[in-house]
Amino acid sequence: MSPPIRVTIWNEFVHERQNPEVARIYPDGIHGALAAALGAEADLAVSTATLDEPEQGLPQALLDQTDVLFWWGHAAHDAVHDETVTRVQQRVLAGMGLIVLHSGHWSKLFKRLMGTTCALCWREAGERERVWVVNPGHPIAAGLGACIEIEQSEMYGEPFGIPEPDELVFVSWFQGGEVFRSGATWTRGSGRIFYFSPGHELYPIYHHPQVRRVLVNGVRWARPQGRAADTPRHVPVELARERIVARGGTVHDAEGRLAT
Amino acid sequence: MSPPIRVTIWNEFVHERQNPEVARIYPDGIHGALAAALGAEADLAVSTATLDEPEQGLPQALLDQTDVLFWWGHAAHDAVHDETVTRVQQRVLAGMGLIVLHSGHWSKLFKRLMGTTCALCWREAGERERVWVVNPGHPIAAGLGACIEIEQSEMYGEPFGIPEPDELVFVSWFQGGEVFRSGATWTRGSGRIFYFSPGHELYPIYHHPQVRRVLVNGVRWARPQGRAADTPRHVPVELARERIVARGGTVHDAEGRLAT
Amino acid sequence: MSPPIRVTIWNEFVHERQNPEVARIYPDGIHGALAAALGAEADLAVSTATLDEPEQGLPQALLDQTDVLFWWGHAAHDAVHDETVTRVQQRVLAGMGLIVLHSGHWSKLFKRLMGTTCALCWREAGERERVWVVNPGHPIAAGLGACIEIEQSEMYGEPFGIPEPDELVFVSWFQGGEVFRSGATWTRGSGRIFYFSPGHELYPIYHHPQVRRVLVNGVRWARPQGRAADTPRHVPVELARERIVARGGTVHDAEGRLAT
Amino acid sequence: MSPPIRVTIWNEFVHERQNPEVARIYPDGIHGALAAALGAEADLAVSTATLDEPEQGLPQALLDQTDVLFWWGHAAHDAVHDETVTRVQQRVLAGMGLIVLHSGHWSKLFKRLMGTTCALCWREAGERERVWVVNPGHPIAAGLGACIEIEQSEMYGEPFGIPEPDELVFVSWFQGGEVFRSGATWTRGSGRIFYFSPGHELYPIYHHPQVRRVLVNGVRWARPQGRAADTPRHVPVELARERIVARGGTVHDAEGRLAT
Repeated sequence: MSPPIRVTIWNEFVHERQNPEVARIYPDGIHGALAAALGAEADLAVSTATLDEPEQGLPQALLDQTDVLFWWGHAAHDAVHDETVTRVQQRVLAGMGLIVLHSGHWSKLFKRLMGTTCALCWREAGERERVWVVNPGHPIAAGLGACIEIEQSEMYGEPFGIPEPDELVFVSWFQGGEVFRSGATWTRGSGRIFYFSPGHELYPIYHHPQVRRVLVNGVRWARPQGRAADTPRHVPVELARERIVARGGTVHDAEGRLAT
Repeated sequence: MSPPIRVTIWNEFVHERQNPEVARIYPDGIHGALAAALGAEADLAVSTATLDEPEQGLPQALLDQTDVLFWWGHAAHDAVHDETVTRVQQRVLAGMGLIVLHSGHWSKLFKRLMGTTCALCWREAGERERVWVVNPGHPIAAGLGACIEIEQSEMYGEPFGIPEPDELVFVSWFQGGEVFRSGATWTRGSGRIFYFSPGHELYPIYHHPQVRRVLVNGVRWARPQGRAADTPRHVPVELARERIVARGGTVHDAEGRLAT
Repeated sequence: MSPPIRVTIWNEFVHERQNPEVARIYPDGIHGALAAALGAEADLAVSTATLDEPEQGLPQALLDQTDVLFWWGHAAHDAVHDETVTRVQQRVLAGMGLIVLHSGHWSKLFKRLMGTTCALCWREAGERERVWVVNPGHPIAAGLGACIEIEQSEMYGEPFGIPEPDELVFVSWFQGGEVFRSGATWTRGSGRIFYFSPGHELYPIYHHPQVRRVLVNGVRWARPQGRAADTPRHVPVELARERIVARGGTVHDAEGRLAT
Repeated sequence: MSPPIRVTIWNEFVHERQNPEVARIYPDGIHGALAAALGAEADLAVSTATLDEPEQGLPQALLDQTDVLFWWGHAAHDAVHDETVTRVQQRVLAGMGLIVLHSGHWSKLFKRLMGTTCALCWREAGERERVWVVNPGHPIAAGLGACIEIEQSEMYGEPFGIPEPDELVFVSWFQGGEVFRSGATWTRGSGRIFYFSPGHELYPIYHHPQVRRVLVNGVRWARPQGRAADTPRHVPVELARERIVARGGTVHDAEGRLAT
């Protein structure tokens, strides 16, 4: 039997402590609700972390023990240190899966990994969202029907400033007239990344059974499956796999360091 | 008749001034050789810029007037300021084409736009490289035969730490036994990016007629063709395209600013 | 000055001759309306062809002179001969651009090139469609605003049985609650393919100025830009680019034909 | 515990019965060697099928019980009936994984699913091939080092007439100077497809431990994970998810059949 997939749910944990309505919906924090959503699965080992913990909740030792990281942030994106972002980015490139939720589209981490603006249009009107499955064979859509109905949601609309996804899984319809690529995947380095947009903190979206199903599916899809990509590597002439003789000059020294 | 494509060739301009062998091959700098390669084309308006110029050669006004930017750097990647990188990145996302050459794979700019390590294996042995066209219908391969033979080249080998390219145009064979994805394209925001790996400064690669053809093709391919992507945008309820009525609370104020 | 792009608009030309309402909207046939939409552009040379013409309107000589082919079919998909499909497919793979419109998603040709079902959900209720630009920098979206409003349209809904597009340009919102990937591109061989879904024959969609803009943009994007892909090719040992000596047996004869 | 993945290995089984050298290397047929390679894995249930069996070895009932199908053909591509190809294609689109090996690039099935020529360059000289991992995080590369060395192989060279792969996993170097995209993946419908080029029948390539590792990895990657894509579906107005009223005419009858 395989060892469990080690999941860490990271949450900035701000609005649940400031806004009574959010606190009512998520009394244990959004991280708590997500942990509950995943906790019933026998193949997952779930823990949580928040911004106010030492090393912003994400010390290297924890990252090294994490197979899939969830990211939830909204109000405190700027409070996340660049060093924290770099640490997490490097762990993703080395193979850790990453699931970015809702307003995490605007996190330093997601923007760092995408290289783009990650901007979008938005409206907070509690309107209806219908999350359509456009790729029914994708493991992240397993167990769903044709679409997920979310009665009250925040509108996120196109154009969404992301690189063309490797795979588009969900596209959302909004009552007010917009559409949005609401579920998309990318591979960066050896890490798999899944962005899923539903989840505004004022609506009980993470209590929705089908949304929970997507999150569980996402973890299984994003778990590391290969090995970490290599670091940059100098290959000395005498170690070439075919025998060659060096000819011409060099701008490097014997250890492969650039001479300047 | 269309206005010319405005090309800016940026070069750190270091090794040509330090290494006599490089100076012999590129007496006018690598930027000078690239400008000569492009200058004969009637539809291109070419200028050059170097790191030692004010604002590192890339003031906003110049970027705003540039359709396609070339990037050549090797020894001075760390000298490029983060603000310079940000300025160029934003202009790419707004639609400027970018052609990154050779050791530019390791520039802050390319790593910023890719979000990955951009690491690779390498060896400086003056060995033979054969750049195979894997996508003969691609405009960047127009006018080439089956492959480009480069008698002396630096080996760049896989794994190359890049996101899966949108389009792979060239794959290189090396005498010492390696392969490399030597020509690849991505779109980021509204900007088109082309990475082309041949070009070690100790070999006269940018004097090779077929390499020059690739560079000219690259410019025409990378020129802006649509419009800039939108910046993030709040859509008030009363401006929704379908009539809706807001219901539920808000975590924003009336101007769409996040309340914290 | 470049020679004009040679466009052939192919139409099955059935419903315009059977249904008075369609005839009223398109008195010169859908191909006539499309030709009018493109005909004002100085860089395009437009002609039309219909199913009832010799060789189903698509003889080899015409295909060889065509840079970009439009395909409009709905009622007569089955009447198109397999040989016609093969002839067009081969020309696309050799570099001809192809623009498939609306119900052409179900044509033998599109299914042949995609390799998938190309199935979708649909409803003919004259409802509102809003075609959102998801890739504002794409040349096919040049000159458009945030979206195209089509007051009466046929609903096409997900899941759409296509391979993941190389580039997604448009996503549509429908009044009845569905979404659809309404503008997508692929490269197959050396040919560029653009599918655009609006265009039900009962509504005057091809008279819409922004739809016409999309069609013109599509032609310019799809025109051949490289060279045709190679046909299969045996490379005799003595023509290898690196000197090698054959060792081991063969299942082929001296001309490279398989011995069975 | 999950039920085993049901693997069917299909082989035309021609050269092993005609060519003594091939028979010596694969006394139980190539399908037998592949079955041995997979048979030691506890999570796989492996069976074989050959062209000379009833319904060309691939009756519907067997396909319905198959999670992942291997395809090996070379001499008898033309003997495979179009109906057989259609049956297998539909099963792939419905979710069955497919692993196409070596000369299977030229099978009717692979060409049907890709929509392209699938042509390539080739040379049978027993030269050295080095299969480089370009995507170390991909599950198909799990457990491999930087590359696989194959001492004697048939050269397959670019350009390879395939659609741009969803993911490129391997690129091969050949002694005679060529390169090849030797391991690539696509999703078509709900089915995952993996093409892997090493495997000429005159060399003992499927006895190579690392090649066998790739095949096992490929099965686990290609197993069905979501659900089958929908068949085309008419959505009557009264079943629209948002209430709409039909307006305008129709070219269909009440059951959604096209009136012609």
